Amino acid sequence: MGAKKGMMKHVISVLVENKFGVLARISGLFSARGFNIDSLAVGETDDPTVSRMTIVAEGNESTLEQITKQLHKLIDVIKVQDITNQDYIDRELMLIKVNAGKKDRAKLIQIVDTFKANIIDVNPETLSIEIAGEQSKIDAIMELLAPFGIREIVRTGRIAMARKKEVAIKKKSS
Amino acid sequence: MGAKKGMMKHVISVLVENKFGVLARISGLFSARGFNIDSLAVGETDDPTVSRMTIVAEGNESTLEQITKQLHKLIDVIKVQDITNQDYIDRELMLIKVNAGKKDRAKLIQIVDTFKANIIDVNPETLSIEIAGEQSKIDAIMELLAPFGIREIVRTGRIAMARKKEVAIKKKSS
Repeated sequence: MGAKKGMMKHVISVLVENKFGVLARISGLFSARGFNIDSLAVGETDDPTVSRMTIVAEGNESTLEQITKQLHKLIDVIKVQDITNQDYIDRELMLIKVNAGKKDRAKLIQIVDTFKANIIDVNPETLSIEIAGEQSKIDAIMELLAPFGIREIVRTGRIAMARKKEVAIKKKSS
Repeated sequence: MGAKKGMMKHVISVLVENKFGVLARISGLFSARGFNIDSLAVGETDDPTVSRMTIVAEGNESTLEQITKQLHKLIDVIKVQDITNQDYIDRELMLIKVNAGKKDRAKLIQIVDTFKANIIDVNPETLSIEIAGEQSKIDAIMELLAPFGIREIVRTGRIAMARKKEVAIKKKSS
């Protein structure tokens, strides 16, 4: 994690065998090459033996090419795609807990409605809100909520899907 | 990743300094102890120098205790919480692209509406759907969509937030 200015953000989608230690090997590969991972999300696919990682990382092109080559060589990696320059949809999910005294509730509910977010928990002093969307939307609601006092934020990191060319969940061999 | 039967799933929330190599060190720690990571999501917080990881991992209690202790010792780790036994909200985000020929569109839109999901992309042959919710909800819509033919799935992995006790984003020292 961490970001340097003037370097390009890459979105890399990696299909891996759902096996022990894969995550450590992959994140180790990035850090060994001095490539900062901004966000990483690993989730299941419809095949329980296969997971998909979405990695957003910042660094220079040629280093990334080396990393991609090395990723391909890892035995548990099925497919690697740098979708940065493709037409893709990207989304993120955030849970945010904010201070919500009586006088602020109406204002907060208005913000939640405007952003098509959801209130998922209510306490006498706080509201917890769930919002999914592009990073710019998440950042925008965060900015509007900040003045009320943010108690806690949990974000998933971005996931991305190319618009046209789907990635079949097929294994290299088996 | 990967899961053994008869072991407990733990949800661990880790606040870390947003620094180079942290992710590799943390995932390495789990794999060195033979602890399988089911899902992992790393996202920003309102402090750009701090990130939060939500790790869902399966394994035995005493090993996890050792891992937690070691996590605490890592210099870039600010706070570790095993929230498994707390009252927490957990959510996940999924993007799913399904086959959508003319005759299936109406049925698909009905499913999308029922689950309060969103259609985020339309092609002549496919629909792309975004859905956020608890894992059971995500699994349920996936099951209903499967018969249409799933082209691609990207999931974030779970993120979780304790209902009551908020975690202040404060650093150990500075």
